[in-house]
Amino acid sequence: MDDLDRVADLIASKSSVLLTSHIRLDGDAVGSELALADGLAQLGKKAHIVNDGPVPGLYTYMNGTHEIGASVRELRGDYDLVIVLDSSDRERLGGISNALPQGTPVLNIDHHSSNDSFGEVAWVDVHASSVGEMIYRLLRRLGAEITPNIAIGLYTAIATDTGRFLHSNTSPEALKITAELLGCGLDLTKANNALYRCTSFNLLKLRMLAEETIALHAGGKIASMHMTKRMFAETGTSPLDTQEFVEIPRSIEGVSVAVLLYELKKPNQVKVSFRSNEDVDVCAVAKQFGGGGHVRAAGCEIDLPLNRAERRVIQAVEAALCPSCHGATP
Amino acid sequence: MDDLDRVADLIASKSSVLLTSHIRLDGDAVGSELALADGLAQLGKKAHIVNDGPVPGLYTYMNGTHEIGASVRELRGDYDLVIVLDSSDRERLGGISNALPQGTPVLNIDHHSSNDSFGEVAWVDVHASSVGEMIYRLLRRLGAEITPNIAIGLYTAIATDTGRFLHSNTSPEALKITAELLGCGLDLTKANNALYRCTSFNLLKLRMLAEETIALHAGGKIASMHMTKRMFAETGTSPLDTQEFVEIPRSIEGVSVAVLLYELKKPNQVKVSFRSNEDVDVCAVAKQFGGGGHVRAAGCEIDLPLNRAERRVIQAVEAALCPSCHGATP
Repeated sequence: MDDLDRVADLIASKSSVLLTSHIRLDGDAVGSELALADGLAQLGKKAHIVNDGPVPGLYTYMNGTHEIGASVRELRGDYDLVIVLDSSDRERLGGISNALPQGTPVLNIDHHSSNDSFGEVAWVDVHASSVGEMIYRLLRRLGAEITPNIAIGLYTAIATDTGRFLHSNTSPEALKITAELLGCGLDLTKANNALYRCTSFNLLKLRMLAEETIALHAGGKIASMHMTKRMFAETGTSPLDTQEFVEIPRSIEGVSVAVLLYELKKPNQVKVSFRSNEDVDVCAVAKQFGGGGHVRAAGCEIDLPLNRAERRVIQAVEAALCPSCHGATP
Repeated sequence: MDDLDRVADLIASKSSVLLTSHIRLDGDAVGSELALADGLAQLGKKAHIVNDGPVPGLYTYMNGTHEIGASVRELRGDYDLVIVLDSSDRERLGGISNALPQGTPVLNIDHHSSNDSFGEVAWVDVHASSVGEMIYRLLRRLGAEITPNIAIGLYTAIATDTGRFLHSNTSPEALKITAELLGCGLDLTKANNALYRCTSFNLLKLRMLAEETIALHAGGKIASMHMTKRMFAETGTSPLDTQEFVEIPRSIEGVSVAVLLYELKKPNQVKVSFRSNEDVDVCAVAKQFGGGGHVRAAGCEIDLPLNRAERRVIQAVEAALCPSCHGATP
């Protein structure tokens, strides 16, 4: 009996399911939740989605996002299964983590290598491009029909987690599933127009402000870029709009590791995203600051003013790039 | 006997093939040429690539680009077949068009709806995402092995013509072929790093200068952006580096048609690229100026100073957007 069988059997035996995912929702979280909820409803089950935080406006082109609960207050009392998606540990659930119904089994479906196997059943596939890819396999196993609604959710999950087939997690499987989704009525134009062709003038302005902060370190092998609360305020934008911005420093010639930092609302709190183009394990770097993720894509939060946080993480990346020469780099 | 059979039979009967493509080479042209040349060599044929103009530096990550001839002077005299790729008519070949060996049959392989069916045999598939996709099918039919070299050429062709699976020509076929190419040893990281992660600081600077020229027209349904010769000179960049720049105005919320203009070297000559997000036929607009292309992606050249060219094309796009109200738009 493989993992997928165990997961399918567990779901088959339940009738009222809570779906939840990590704070600062991304496309894989929201798309996978919506697709799985639709599939469970097809199978006659109640499915309710609640996260700690709202669905970013970017993803509201998918049907059903307005029915997703955005705080613990929307939790109900009648769940017989909790499915946690795309979260390497319980803490990533934010406030939901302490509010889960006591005694209800937790099914953990994830693809992060840093997953700590929490939950009564943990299905962790580090080779999956995205949780969306795993949900596709699960829905097929459960015998659900891949409707256009499900297709757009799964496409959103796969496209956002692979950087639209840019990153090294772009697998034959991810591409073949996307081809299948097109055959199931995926409205690719709708999804791509929303994800990649709906930049506001304000976001363009924010990007230009951010690009002016780009700095190179370690002889050009590290590029950092940052955004201040003031930049967000001046342009009327939100950090949730900038999930792809880390690709900007990453795309510079010769860069091995890109670092994007931005100020969170709480004073002296900074969110950091790392991307590695080569063999540098940025998950290990992020873990030094209490974060996690994948070898080539990771993140953390640091309680320091922006400039000090930037200095600290650059030092840590320099050490990871060249452990023996750390301290000698410019 | 279908088109593909006719093409395969023609090639099978020949032994020395000239491959050529359009001026201002793009990824579909270069990638398809290299892949087909490799396949023909496997089959024991001589294959020689000559275009009118150099291979843009962006594509030199593919093996064999330095053996590609860049002017008519490199043509030889012993061809028994000419294969023209990705070119809607003979004029698109630039100087090559008048220098083709007399009496040698021409095979025209293309996917543009504006193709005029030139050549002894014309294989035009307007449903193909790219010529690369057609070459994949052709190489399979010819029994060639898809080597890693061929895979990176075909991937380059498909990825650049679909905007990395962004545009509406992203078909199940294009995705499935890409999955197959991964299975044939495609070095996706190498190609993607070169295509999408090798931006020079200078190109970033050019992009910021260009973004400052963005203007909206027709109540925000048209966005234009332009680059002057001076911007290229100041940043040490070339128009060949900017083939994806038209996506910037195109990505603005509410925009139906994006127009990118830049000054060519010759005084008062402007290159224009059109992209349509909706039902506007920009190929028809480009044809008004002697250009062509696809319904949603087209281009032309105009002999006018930049500002006058910009005014003329915006008027033409406004007329295409709303034939009855043309003249009333701001």
